[in-house]
Amino acid sequence: MTNETANSVFRGVFPYLPSPVDSGGRVREGELAALVDHLVAKGVHGLTPLGSTGEFAYLDDGQKAAVIRCVVSAAAGRVPVVAGVAATTVRAAVEQTRRAVDAGADGILAVLEAYFPVNEAGVEEYFTAVAEAAGALPVVLYTNPTFQRSDLSIDSIVRLSKVGNIRYLKDASANTGRLLSIMNRAEGLGIFSASAHIPVSVMLLGGLGWMAGPACVAPAASVRLYDLARAGDWPAAVALQKRLWKLNEIFARYSLASCIKAALTMQGFAMGEPLRPQQPLGEDARKHIKTVLEELEDIL
Amino acid sequence: MTNETANSVFRGVFPYLPSPVDSGGRVREGELAALVDHLVAKGVHGLTPLGSTGEFAYLDDGQKAAVIRCVVSAAAGRVPVVAGVAATTVRAAVEQTRRAVDAGADGILAVLEAYFPVNEAGVEEYFTAVAEAAGALPVVLYTNPTFQRSDLSIDSIVRLSKVGNIRYLKDASANTGRLLSIMNRAEGLGIFSASAHIPVSVMLLGGLGWMAGPACVAPAASVRLYDLARAGDWPAAVALQKRLWKLNEIFARYSLASCIKAALTMQGFAMGEPLRPQQPLGEDARKHIKTVLEELEDIL
Amino acid sequence: MTNETANSVFRGVFPYLPSPVDSGGRVREGELAALVDHLVAKGVHGLTPLGSTGEFAYLDDGQKAAVIRCVVSAAAGRVPVVAGVAATTVRAAVEQTRRAVDAGADGILAVLEAYFPVNEAGVEEYFTAVAEAAGALPVVLYTNPTFQRSDLSIDSIVRLSKVGNIRYLKDASANTGRLLSIMNRAEGLGIFSASAHIPVSVMLLGGLGWMAGPACVAPAASVRLYDLARAGDWPAAVALQKRLWKLNEIFARYSLASCIKAALTMQGFAMGEPLRPQQPLGEDARKHIKTVLEELEDIL
Amino acid sequence: MTNETANSVFRGVFPYLPSPVDSGGRVREGELAALVDHLVAKGVHGLTPLGSTGEFAYLDDGQKAAVIRCVVSAAAGRVPVVAGVAATTVRAAVEQTRRAVDAGADGILAVLEAYFPVNEAGVEEYFTAVAEAAGALPVVLYTNPTFQRSDLSIDSIVRLSKVGNIRYLKDASANTGRLLSIMNRAEGLGIFSASAHIPVSVMLLGGLGWMAGPACVAPAASVRLYDLARAGDWPAAVALQKRLWKLNEIFARYSLASCIKAALTMQGFAMGEPLRPQQPLGEDARKHIKTVLEELEDIL
Repeated sequence: MTNETANSVFRGVFPYLPSPVDSGGRVREGELAALVDHLVAKGVHGLTPLGSTGEFAYLDDGQKAAVIRCVVSAAAGRVPVVAGVAATTVRAAVEQTRRAVDAGADGILAVLEAYFPVNEAGVEEYFTAVAEAAGALPVVLYTNPTFQRSDLSIDSIVRLSKVGNIRYLKDASANTGRLLSIMNRAEGLGIFSASAHIPVSVMLLGGLGWMAGPACVAPAASVRLYDLARAGDWPAAVALQKRLWKLNEIFARYSLASCIKAALTMQGFAMGEPLRPQQPLGEDARKHIKTVLEELEDIL
Repeated sequence: MTNETANSVFRGVFPYLPSPVDSGGRVREGELAALVDHLVAKGVHGLTPLGSTGEFAYLDDGQKAAVIRCVVSAAAGRVPVVAGVAATTVRAAVEQTRRAVDAGADGILAVLEAYFPVNEAGVEEYFTAVAEAAGALPVVLYTNPTFQRSDLSIDSIVRLSKVGNIRYLKDASANTGRLLSIMNRAEGLGIFSASAHIPVSVMLLGGLGWMAGPACVAPAASVRLYDLARAGDWPAAVALQKRLWKLNEIFARYSLASCIKAALTMQGFAMGEPLRPQQPLGEDARKHIKTVLEELEDIL
Repeated sequence: MTNETANSVFRGVFPYLPSPVDSGGRVREGELAALVDHLVAKGVHGLTPLGSTGEFAYLDDGQKAAVIRCVVSAAAGRVPVVAGVAATTVRAAVEQTRRAVDAGADGILAVLEAYFPVNEAGVEEYFTAVAEAAGALPVVLYTNPTFQRSDLSIDSIVRLSKVGNIRYLKDASANTGRLLSIMNRAEGLGIFSASAHIPVSVMLLGGLGWMAGPACVAPAASVRLYDLARAGDWPAAVALQKRLWKLNEIFARYSLASCIKAALTMQGFAMGEPLRPQQPLGEDARKHIKTVLEELEDIL
Repeated sequence: MTNETANSVFRGVFPYLPSPVDSGGRVREGELAALVDHLVAKGVHGLTPLGSTGEFAYLDDGQKAAVIRCVVSAAAGRVPVVAGVAATTVRAAVEQTRRAVDAGADGILAVLEAYFPVNEAGVEEYFTAVAEAAGALPVVLYTNPTFQRSDLSIDSIVRLSKVGNIRYLKDASANTGRLLSIMNRAEGLGIFSASAHIPVSVMLLGGLGWMAGPACVAPAASVRLYDLARAGDWPAAVALQKRLWKLNEIFARYSLASCIKAALTMQGFAMGEPLRPQQPLGEDARKHIKTVLEELEDIL
C-alpha cells in the first residue's frame, strides 16, 4: 500500500481500465483483478483506472475507491497505477485525490468536469489544488475537449507544467498538432497519447507512450508497437500501427465504455455492461467488434 | 413534511433558487430561508431549488438534501417546492428522487446529465425511472441543450408525456419554435419557459409560467407580468417584458450562478460566491449588474 | 423600372421567393411571374427574391439579375421588391447591389457570405458599402447564423442601424430573445421575423412582419395572421399560428429550397428542383409535405 | 500550354499559392510569377493556386482564370500546377474545371462549397462531374471541415477513389487518425497533408507529401523535410519538423490568407492584402510573424 518510488516515472503503455459493476452497484473485483493480472503478464507498463473508458462520470465515490483499491492490490507494485480524479469542484477533487493517495495509487490522472464554462484562472486553480493534494505523487493532466465542457489552453498547460509534481499530459483531442505545440512550449512535460491520436505519430514526435482503452484489448501488440518505436524501427512500427488502428476505429465508432466492455467480455473477461442509462451494444456492433478481433487475431 | 395536494398543480412564476454554500461546504440555511420567505411574500407561485442556477452540478448528495429540506421547511406549504434531480446514472437519479420525496418536495424537476452520448432508449429509461421513484409527485422534464450533453427529442418528449406523473416540461433552449412544436404534439404536457425564452411569448402560446433564475431578483415584477399575461393584457405585458428582459440579458452574459448570487447579495441576501473553481464576478460585471438593477428599481 | 417611393416602407408579409431554373441554367420566368401574380393577388405586402430560400448561393450573376428583373416586372409596382445581395467580397456585393438598383428593386436584403472568419470591422465595412451602393433604397440586414460563417454582433447591428438607409433587420436565428435585445438597443431598426422564429411572437414584441419561405405556400393565411396581430386579436392570431407552424416545421426539417419548390409544385407552380448537387426530395418527404398541405387545406 | 505527362504524378511539397490582387481587382501577375520562380528554384515539387490560402472563395471567374494562366505560364512545365476548383453547383464546377484544363493546369484540386447541407449522393455527384470534366487530368479531392459546410465521409471517399482520375486526397482536418483510416480503406488514393496536420507524421504513415500555405514561406526547409522523410531519417526529420511547426502555428492563429500575404511581403514578394472585407493583420500579428521568421532564419 506504499507509493512505490520505482513506480513514479511513467512511460510506455497504460491501458485505460473499464470499471465492471454488477446490477446491484458493486464493483466486480475478481474480474477486474483478473484483467489486471492478464495485462501485467502481457507486459504493459502501467494501469489507469477511472479514465473516460473507466466510466468515472458514472460512478459514486464508494465505487471509485473500490476500483482503485482493487487495481492497486492486483498490480501489487509490479507496475504503477495512475488513478483518475474527476470533479466539478475543487473540494470534491481534493477529497478524491486524498482517497486515491490513501488507496496506494502511484499517480493521479486529473480531469476537470464542468457544467458552466470556467475561465483559465479557475481551471488552473483546480489542477493546482489536485497537485497539492497529491503530495509526492506525479500528476497527469488530462484534457478531453469532446466530452468535457472546458479545455486547457496551451498557456494554462505551460503555467501548470511549472507546478512541481504536474509532470505529464494526456490529451484526448484528435489534434496531434496541438501536442506538438505543447511539446515545443512546455518542455518538461511528458506527453501521452490518447486513443484519438495515432500512438506511433506521438512516439515519433517524442511522446512517452499512450494511455488508452484499446490497449486493454491488445496489450501484447501495444507493447510490441511501443518497443518498435523506442528502438527507432519506424517502418515496422507503422506496419503494426496500421493494423492496430482498426481497434481505435471501433472504439471511436461505438461508445467507449460499451465497446471496451464488450470486447473484453469476448476475450474472456466478464466486464458486464455500461452503467444505465447507457445502453449495451446491439448485435451488429458486437459482430463488427468480433470481426475486427478476428482480423487481428495473429497479433492480439 | 407531507406532500401537499393543493401544491400538486404547477402554474405561474417559480424562481430558480441559488444554493448558498460557505467555504466549509455547509449550506447557509438561514440565508436561504430568508430568501424563500421574501419570494413567497412577493407572491411567487412556487420554488425550484437545484436547477442549473442552483449549481446542482457542483453539490454533493448531502448538500443537495440540505438545500431541499431548508426550502421545504421555509416554504411551509405556502407554495409548491419542485426539487431538481440530476445524475448520469439511473441508480443515482432514483436515489436522489427518493431523498427529495422524503424531504417533502412537491414535485421533481428531472435532468439527465451525460458524459458519453445516450440514445433515445436510454434517455427515456432514465426519465421513466425518475417518474416511478417520484411516486405520486408530478415530474417536470428539464432539457438544457447548452450545458447537458444530451437532448430530448420531440418524439421522446411525446412518449414520456404519456407516463402518468410526467406532467410538465421546462425547456432551456433559446428556440421558442421548439416549444410550439412540443405544445402541438404533446397536448397534455404543461410548458414552462426558461430564462433563455421570452416569458411573455411562451405565455401567449399557452405556456403555464416560467422557472428561471432572474425571477429571484425580480419576484414582484415577474408576478405582475404573469398576471398581465393571464388577464390577456398583452400590450401592458409586453411593455413590462421589454424592461425585464435586461435581467435575462445579464444572466445570459455572465455565468448564471455567479450572476444570481451577486445580484441577490446586492439586494441584501448574502448568497456568497459560486463554488470553486467557478470564479466570482469581476468588478466590471458587478457594476453592470448594479446598473441594471438601478434602471429597473421602480419595478423591482 | 423606377424605384417607387410608395414602396419604400416595408411592413407585413414578404414571401421569400424560390428561384426556378431549368436544367440548362435558364430562369423559368413565366413560372416565376405566375407565382408573383398569385402572391400579390393573395395580399402579400412585398416580395423577396434571392434570400436563402431563393438559393442565392447557387446562382451566378446572370441568373440573379434575371430573377430580379422578372420579379420586378411581374410585381409591376403593386408591392415592393426587396432583392437579396450576397457575396464574400465588398467588391462583388457592391456590383450586385448596383445591378439590383438598376433592375428596379425597391430595397436590398444584404447578406455577408464568409469563408474565413471576419471581424466586426470587416462586417461593418461590408454592410456600409452595400448601403452606400443602394443609394436611396432601404437596406435590410440579414443574418443567418446557421448557414453563414459570420454573425452580426448586437453592437455591430446598433452601429449599422445609424447608417441612414439601413432601416430593417431580418434575423434567421431561432433565438427570439436576441430579437428583443436588438429591439431594445437599436430603436430605429424595423424587425422582420424569419421562418425559424414564430411570427406571432415577433409581432407581439413589436416586429413589422416576416420575410420567409413558408409564406409562399400560405400567402392568404399569412396575411390573415398578420391582420389579426395588427388588430391585437392575439387569441385568434395564436390559434392560427399554431396551425401554420406545421409549415415552418417541415421547412426546418427538409432542405429549404427543396421543400419550397416541392410544395409550390404541388400547388400548381412548377418550380422544378433545387440546383445540383442539391438533391430533390425523396418520396417520403413529398408525402409528408402533401399531408401537411392537406391538413391545412381549409386555411391555405 | 500542353498538359505535361511528366507532370501527371504528384508527390512532394506543393505550396498553396496566395492570390495577389490589387485594389482595382486585377491579379498582380508579375508578383505572382516572381513567387513561382522563387519556389521552383527552391525545389518545390508542384504548385497549387486557388486553394483556401489562395482565397478561392473571394475571387470571381475572371480572377481565377488569370491566376491559373499566370502560374502555368511561370511554371513553364518545370513542376505540375494543380488548380483549385470550388463551387456550390455542379454546373459552375464543371465550367471552372474546363477553364482550368484550357489554361494548361496539370491537375485539379476539387472543393465542394455548400450553403445548405448536401447528402452523400450529392457530394459524390459533384466530384464525379468534376473528374469527368477534367478529362485526362488527375483530380485531388480536398476536404476542409472547418470552412466548408459539407464533409466527405470515408465511405464516399472510398467510392470516389474508384473513379479513374480521382487519384489523390488532401484532407484539411486536424485529425490525422482520419487520414490513417482513409489510407487503410482507399488503398489506391495518394494522401497529401494539409497545414493542420503534421507533415512528418503523414509521411511516416505513407503520405505522398503536403499541399499547404506555409510551404510558400519555407520552400527550401520544406523540401529538406520531405527529403529526410523520404530517406527514412526520422530523427532528423522530426527535429526539423519541430522547428517548422511554428510556421503552422501562426498560420492557424491568424487568418490564412492574411498571414501568408503578410509573411511573403516581408520576404520581398509584394502580395498585398487579403480581399475586403477581410482585414489586414494588425501590428501585433505582424510582429509575431516577423519574430517567427527571424527565429527560423537559419533554415528558411
